[in-house]
Amino acid sequence: MKIDYRTLHGHFSAILRKDGFAPPRDQVISSVFADNTFDGVFSHGINRFPRFIRDVRSGTIDPGASPTLINRSGSLEQWDGQQGPGMLNALHCTERSIEVAKESGIGCISLRNTNHWMRGGTYGWKAAESGLMFIGWTNTIPNMPPWPGSTPALGNNPFIMAIPRTNGHIVLDMAMSQYSYGKLEWYQRKGMQLPEYGGYNRENKLSKDPSEILDSERILPIGLWKGSAFSLVLDLTAAILAGGSTSRVIGSRETETDLSQVFIALDIERFMDATTRDQLIEETLRFNSMTNPEARYPGERTLKDRELHRKEGIEVPEEVWEEISRL
Amino acid sequence: MKIDYRTLHGHFSAILRKDGFAPPRDQVISSVFADNTFDGVFSHGINRFPRFIRDVRSGTIDPGASPTLINRSGSLEQWDGQQGPGMLNALHCTERSIEVAKESGIGCISLRNTNHWMRGGTYGWKAAESGLMFIGWTNTIPNMPPWPGSTPALGNNPFIMAIPRTNGHIVLDMAMSQYSYGKLEWYQRKGMQLPEYGGYNRENKLSKDPSEILDSERILPIGLWKGSAFSLVLDLTAAILAGGSTSRVIGSRETETDLSQVFIALDIERFMDATTRDQLIEETLRFNSMTNPEARYPGERTLKDRELHRKEGIEVPEEVWEEISRL
Repeated sequence: MKIDYRTLHGHFSAILRKDGFAPPRDQVISSVFADNTFDGVFSHGINRFPRFIRDVRSGTIDPGASPTLINRSGSLEQWDGQQGPGMLNALHCTERSIEVAKESGIGCISLRNTNHWMRGGTYGWKAAESGLMFIGWTNTIPNMPPWPGSTPALGNNPFIMAIPRTNGHIVLDMAMSQYSYGKLEWYQRKGMQLPEYGGYNRENKLSKDPSEILDSERILPIGLWKGSAFSLVLDLTAAILAGGSTSRVIGSRETETDLSQVFIALDIERFMDATTRDQLIEETLRFNSMTNPEARYPGERTLKDRELHRKEGIEVPEEVWEEISRL
Repeated sequence: MKIDYRTLHGHFSAILRKDGFAPPRDQVISSVFADNTFDGVFSHGINRFPRFIRDVRSGTIDPGASPTLINRSGSLEQWDGQQGPGMLNALHCTERSIEVAKESGIGCISLRNTNHWMRGGTYGWKAAESGLMFIGWTNTIPNMPPWPGSTPALGNNPFIMAIPRTNGHIVLDMAMSQYSYGKLEWYQRKGMQLPEYGGYNRENKLSKDPSEILDSERILPIGLWKGSAFSLVLDLTAAILAGGSTSRVIGSRETETDLSQVFIALDIERFMDATTRDQLIEETLRFNSMTNPEARYPGERTLKDRELHRKEGIEVPEEVWEEISRL
């Protein structure tokens, strides 16, 4: 069935209000889920909404909690998310990073004791829309084996970098695994092989078969030893900066919560105006697509998906809509 | 032949003095090349020294130049490397990032118009030795095709993150290609296959054959589309922050010069003392190696190599030593 943005947003916020989210919190959270859906990231949009509500009902997410400031020193701040909704905590910290960057050129805000922020790109887009460059990351439960191991011990720890651009921001939103579990399940449901190697099977062979990889739990770090090392460093830096939990500690909980995150914004317009910046970016993108016509920049598909979906609505599987309607 | 640290260092500095490097600059550069060699990174140590001297003699590197401050605002600074030696410029900017971080918690120093910094890890180690966390990156000539293209248009743009730790710093030093050209040539000389896929051959097939990949020039970005996107973003952010050249512009020069780099230091001890930090790191490393005995942390091998080489000297191929002796 086809659903338009307004209907989806209204549906989300009606459920959220019922579950204790007072305005404007219900509106903001509905926007995050609806935007992610319309940007083509179903896994952190409509498909994830039921899990979010279940986490509220089980007490993992406190619908009324707001982040509190723990430490402030120079351009560094440390916040406690108080187990509140991950996207509200993360939006707050992105805003603080923007404010501090506007004061002193760069702001680094860390956040502990928070919940899943859904799509990391959300915070990159937000900073870019304010004209700032952004670097951010989160840790997660251990869901990826460190190279060359076979037991999950690292998170896939998404890492975000964003650059403002007048004709469409450049937003890198990159988990440390080649494919997410959500993507493997998607290929499995469709009965398709992965286009590229996604992990190892139980026979210790690289595999494109999503079922084999889901069975072995050996998803592939990007760049093998490199993504493995990067993931470890993102976990440690987030936990140290935030004074929060590492993936190891998160993995010892019953469910994924108590995450650590980092939000760094940079006020790049102090040294380069937007026109010069845009021109520098255009020249590089033109060079890339001239030499390699299939090359895309990160964020390019998002804009196309957004335009298409806003115009035509989105196709929601009946079972997903029914699940949401039962909430 | 076996060479000890002191002999190698003395040899380097004698050549550097002859080529116009006054003390203490000859000493600092000799230390960078000797340290990289003794840390096991021959490609950016002894093997690269002849190329460095050739770049000085051809005028690419100005031996007497020092970086000049272009812009300062809040905790951001922008420097011009004046085409000076890359390691002196990068060490200066690392020091500035540490100083600014000690003033305001975080410092972001950007550098344009510089030369190759050799091993990116050098600057991560330096910041970690001062007790600071570090994030840094550089752009390079275009030497890697953007995914899924076949013509080099992106740099392999090394990205560095470092965390201080009493028993050995954690230092990620990660180029965006799965293997460097230097590493491919090393396997080719040894007549060995790569342990993992390193690129595509001319038949558009993934290959472990270094000769095939050197021939096609299609080295593999880490994580395919992910490393390709990350590389693009590192190039653009470095050039925008530094007001410097992008990989595209660098590629239009006769030789690799005029690079853009970023150095961010974070004064993490403001919120977490070294003992707590060390404990947090040890617990995670112990968890990783308990669950996956082969897992290593980034920087671990460096320390072992350093200890071994300082004790036993290093084995230098006759032809490398002769090439250096002829300089």
